[in-house]
Amino acid sequence: MGHIVLVTGGARSGKSTRAEARVSALPGERVYIATARPDDAEMRERIARHAARRGAGWVTVEEPLDLVGALARSDGRGPRLVDCLTLWLANLMFAGRDWEPEAAALVAALARQQGPVVLVSNEVGMGIVPENALARAFRDAQGWLNQRVAEAADEVEFVVSGLPLKVK
Amino acid sequence: MGHIVLVTGGARSGKSTRAEARVSALPGERVYIATARPDDAEMRERIARHAARRGAGWVTVEEPLDLVGALARSDGRGPRLVDCLTLWLANLMFAGRDWEPEAAALVAALARQQGPVVLVSNEVGMGIVPENALARAFRDAQGWLNQRVAEAADEVEFVVSGLPLKVK
Amino acid sequence: MGHIVLVTGGARSGKSTRAEARVSALPGERVYIATARPDDAEMRERIARHAARRGAGWVTVEEPLDLVGALARSDGRGPRLVDCLTLWLANLMFAGRDWEPEAAALVAALARQQGPVVLVSNEVGMGIVPENALARAFRDAQGWLNQRVAEAADEVEFVVSGLPLKVK
Repeated sequence: MGHIVLVTGGARSGKSTRAEARVSALPGERVYIATARPDDAEMRERIARHAARRGAGWVTVEEPLDLVGALARSDGRGPRLVDCLTLWLANLMFAGRDWEPEAAALVAALARQQGPVVLVSNEVGMGIVPENALARAFRDAQGWLNQRVAEAADEVEFVVSGLPLKVK
Repeated sequence: MGHIVLVTGGARSGKSTRAEARVSALPGERVYIATARPDDAEMRERIARHAARRGAGWVTVEEPLDLVGALARSDGRGPRLVDCLTLWLANLMFAGRDWEPEAAALVAALARQQGPVVLVSNEVGMGIVPENALARAFRDAQGWLNQRVAEAADEVEFVVSGLPLKVK
Repeated sequence: MGHIVLVTGGARSGKSTRAEARVSALPGERVYIATARPDDAEMRERIARHAARRGAGWVTVEEPLDLVGALARSDGRGPRLVDCLTLWLANLMFAGRDWEPEAAALVAALARQQGPVVLVSNEVGMGIVPENALARAFRDAQGWLNQRVAEAADEVEFVVSGLPLKVK
């Protein structure tokens, strides 16, 4: 059974760097499963910066929606990094897909992995209640998803100022 | 003296579930002190979902404002769950009440409890400074209340992705 | 080499009080380096409240921009409290200064200190993504700064409801 790690934290908390370090410590070809859509300039710049930091020794797979499929296709190649669940969830909601069965399918898929997976997610519920109903719905969905993935994970780390706090 | 536990965390972090588990582990009739006002559809749906999750073996008391009274009246019946301080504080402010003496009275009341109490609260100060002055005032009040209740508590847990981190 | 401590947390989490306690436990004249600009009523009131809490035995230095200089000038006098990096960063950005070299210079300066320094900063990235591009840029800069200062620090504490969680 593949070892599953969830790395969560705020925006720019250093969670991707931490997750990369976890994956880099494992043997085998590393697979980076990017859920970002390179739609806008901000996101393109961020993707390029992350790729430069990872360097060689990584294969990149872009998969904004079919994360379960990307995990199935990459299993056995080497350790996988999913960066990140927050963009995946936003992509599902933006595409008008029902996120709940998709999230349940992801959790079920994690239990089937033979190789290790490190998943990055965001903490988005520690600010003031958003005035916008869509933002509240997203915040609720993200919190639910993090709980379910954390339950399925063997390890959970909460990153603060670049430093991991072990929560599981 | 009643054992006091504060369970804090972000929105949808699993803090209510965690607090319920803490109360369920204690002997006696469980009292759920709900501070929510079932005013709108979102809130009604959430209250119904929480009630279904708790199941039988719980008595529900609805008290949006007089939390000190609700604690006094329920003391000795069994372990109490206060869910949550954030809605209570919002209700006080919305009712135009001066929250500071009420918060001080709550902290004083906690020291008088004979039976155990588990209180749920939210972390709301880890986002960008709100543009809205009322939201800033609420954020300040919530932070102050959490500090005072944490000081009065025997245990404090910070819930991240459904998992408790012991902070006291 | 001066011992460097970063105390981070949300708004009104009790991080300043915690940082003051850390500095107060050290021998020597305490220097409070305030980065706040007493421009508006809210901020003036907060500064006065913090000063009253600290009491005697503190020298206050107001330095909204030249934090590196303030640290150099105060080194050797006694333990220093920098409150806080978030206002300093906001001041730099508001003044149209390029924050990245200034942040790098601060990190380099921390390595040169002979006496101890406790720095307060905020976690601002655990809410919903701000709609405002400037707020997003600030959030990113703050996250980056916290990571770099945490890397340079000997100790890092994350304060939740007034209680410190040791992260380094």
